[in-house]
Amino acid sequence: MGVTGPRGFRASGVAAGIKEGGGPDLALVVNDGPRREATGLFTTNKVKAAPVLWSEQVLRERRLHAVVLNSGGANACTGPEGFQDTHSTAERVAGELGTGAIEVAVCSTGLIGQRLPMEALLSGVTTAVGELSDSGRAAEDAATAILTTDSGPKQAFVRHPSGFSVGAMVKGAGMIAPNLATMLAVLTTDAVAEPDVLDQALRRAAATTFERLDVDGGTSTNDTVLLLSSGASGVAVDTDELTGILTETCAELVRHLQYDAEGATKAVDVTVRGAVRETDAVRIARVVAEDNLVGTALFGSDPNWGRIAMAVGRALADTDAEAMEIALNGVTLYSAGVPVAEREVVDLSGREVEIVIDLRSGPHEATVYTTDLSHGYVEENSAYSS
Amino acid sequence: MGVTGPRGFRASGVAAGIKEGGGPDLALVVNDGPRREATGLFTTNKVKAAPVLWSEQVLRERRLHAVVLNSGGANACTGPEGFQDTHSTAERVAGELGTGAIEVAVCSTGLIGQRLPMEALLSGVTTAVGELSDSGRAAEDAATAILTTDSGPKQAFVRHPSGFSVGAMVKGAGMIAPNLATMLAVLTTDAVAEPDVLDQALRRAAATTFERLDVDGGTSTNDTVLLLSSGASGVAVDTDELTGILTETCAELVRHLQYDAEGATKAVDVTVRGAVRETDAVRIARVVAEDNLVGTALFGSDPNWGRIAMAVGRALADTDAEAMEIALNGVTLYSAGVPVAEREVVDLSGREVEIVIDLRSGPHEATVYTTDLSHGYVEENSAYSS
Repeated sequence: MGVTGPRGFRASGVAAGIKEGGGPDLALVVNDGPRREATGLFTTNKVKAAPVLWSEQVLRERRLHAVVLNSGGANACTGPEGFQDTHSTAERVAGELGTGAIEVAVCSTGLIGQRLPMEALLSGVTTAVGELSDSGRAAEDAATAILTTDSGPKQAFVRHPSGFSVGAMVKGAGMIAPNLATMLAVLTTDAVAEPDVLDQALRRAAATTFERLDVDGGTSTNDTVLLLSSGASGVAVDTDELTGILTETCAELVRHLQYDAEGATKAVDVTVRGAVRETDAVRIARVVAEDNLVGTALFGSDPNWGRIAMAVGRALADTDAEAMEIALNGVTLYSAGVPVAEREVVDLSGREVEIVIDLRSGPHEATVYTTDLSHGYVEENSAYSS
Repeated sequence: MGVTGPRGFRASGVAAGIKEGGGPDLALVVNDGPRREATGLFTTNKVKAAPVLWSEQVLRERRLHAVVLNSGGANACTGPEGFQDTHSTAERVAGELGTGAIEVAVCSTGLIGQRLPMEALLSGVTTAVGELSDSGRAAEDAATAILTTDSGPKQAFVRHPSGFSVGAMVKGAGMIAPNLATMLAVLTTDAVAEPDVLDQALRRAAATTFERLDVDGGTSTNDTVLLLSSGASGVAVDTDELTGILTETCAELVRHLQYDAEGATKAVDVTVRGAVRETDAVRIARVVAEDNLVGTALFGSDPNWGRIAMAVGRALADTDAEAMEIALNGVTLYSAGVPVAEREVVDLSGREVEIVIDLRSGPHEATVYTTDLSHGYVEENSAYSS
């Protein structure tokens, strides 16, 4: 179950002819209310795609009636004409639904620097509106239509004991640091929540989930996370409650993204413990996660802790490197400046890899979710323009 | 010609039995004077190998009689015993040459976290002293003995019209951002120069050469650049003169490293122009150089300027993204927010790739030297522990 799990939402996914070679490429998510509070998070990249510029503007009102998403083209670096294309898309959706364009967010993903085939896209919108449904199948169709190099649809659904729920769909492989493909996520909830509650809860949930996923250090021009609330459950929530359930939902989406990252053969959790500040733990874990020598060693199932020590040493500012401990899949290999176990003891042949770096200098910790660096990654990203 | 090109230097390279599988693995460079001023640059990594800690200490005196270098083991993360091994190595060299250990620098490269086979290494030192010669062949032997995954020895020699010269050998693939392997460089000159002149000139030369080479963003635990002067030419130099010739020498070494980087199929120069500050130009060029999506696109000979725009957008702080221009191999593809040429016009099939990003917001520019991200890189770094 995905975005149509919570009450008050319909969705659809159709093949509009945007993608070369056909296939589903246009998705629609509609909030039937009774309420329409919404919020969003957007890429920090200074080069922002037209749909990001549009949706940021739209969300100043903190209301969304619908979200329209397309794969097959990012509509980034396309100038004023590209922005006009996004605007026309929102207007078409609004016209079909009898609402204002200012309540329609737009998301796009695909190749940067090309205009979208607007005729196909706009007639696809009309088809998508006709196919709207609150079924689980409709949510899956929507989740499928936004995919690029993903191997299959990624959805999540979590029910809260107090009677509301959160549904979601996502594509791509990262928020702060996505893979080739943009990360787009749409979360829906039937909880009753003020815009400030939605916004705070989404930011907090993203900070420990999407923002801790780092496949290759990139940040797309199009990354977008949207949260729509219908209030249809009649259950009011506070920020903490909503943060909890959103974190659970986003964590599930992050696992989907981590396991489906391009070419990845390992799901690697990098935990830094004993840091003076949490931001230090995140920063150091991120440097290790992005290190190509660590990534290739893991692809080779090689417990090469020396490369991890090297990466940590690059990232350390004022922390004493001598104090650190490095463990791989539960085996401590390096401690207080010397090796303490034979690397051969560590088995990295499985899919899951756990790297724990204990700085032993403070109380804070953080985990960053990443993958290995494989032939598959190079293949997917060199053989196809994307 | 390499380190024995300038007068006053002898060198040798032998197979001491440090490397598994044999092969040359121990090099010696000796300064016969009459002067022995020297200086060095060392890794900024907080995890420093024993030989780096030792050589930093030695160079406080700004004098070197000799440098001993080994491949087959980095002697990093080896604790006090590893430091003692470095110390013993320097003492053996000093004993053989009739000098003090405090005038002997040590460099090591290879796998992190393993002790060196000291018996073999120390007896190798005796052999190496016996083979010292001022011939070009001896310099090549030394340059060969320090190699790890390099495909062959890398040397340079530049003669100044005023009668002094600079010789050099290097291994690895970067200073600030080396590949799998540590970068070690030894430069020799027969100029007469005060320690301050040597130090300033080396720093200035490295800033625009070694520090602009960025293959994979790593920084080794062992990176070292040493400069030894014998004064044997009798020609005194000032800082500017020496900076010029050192820059020329280091630039040649950097080209060797760039073309021989692990698995690389392209030599990629990333130039950022029109920056407000030179540091901005370097920082942005570095982000583009380290971007795996740009690297894989180049491996695929794909003129995917959208990925370059994405990478620049990640790196921009206060600069307006709309103003930028992106050119690939001389063809401007993106300007003022829109594509201005078909990407198919660009031919990336050759070995050299030139990326020029013009921010059009200031007078400064910088070039960073990098490579593509290839199957060969993944293969070399996953299949072998190094």
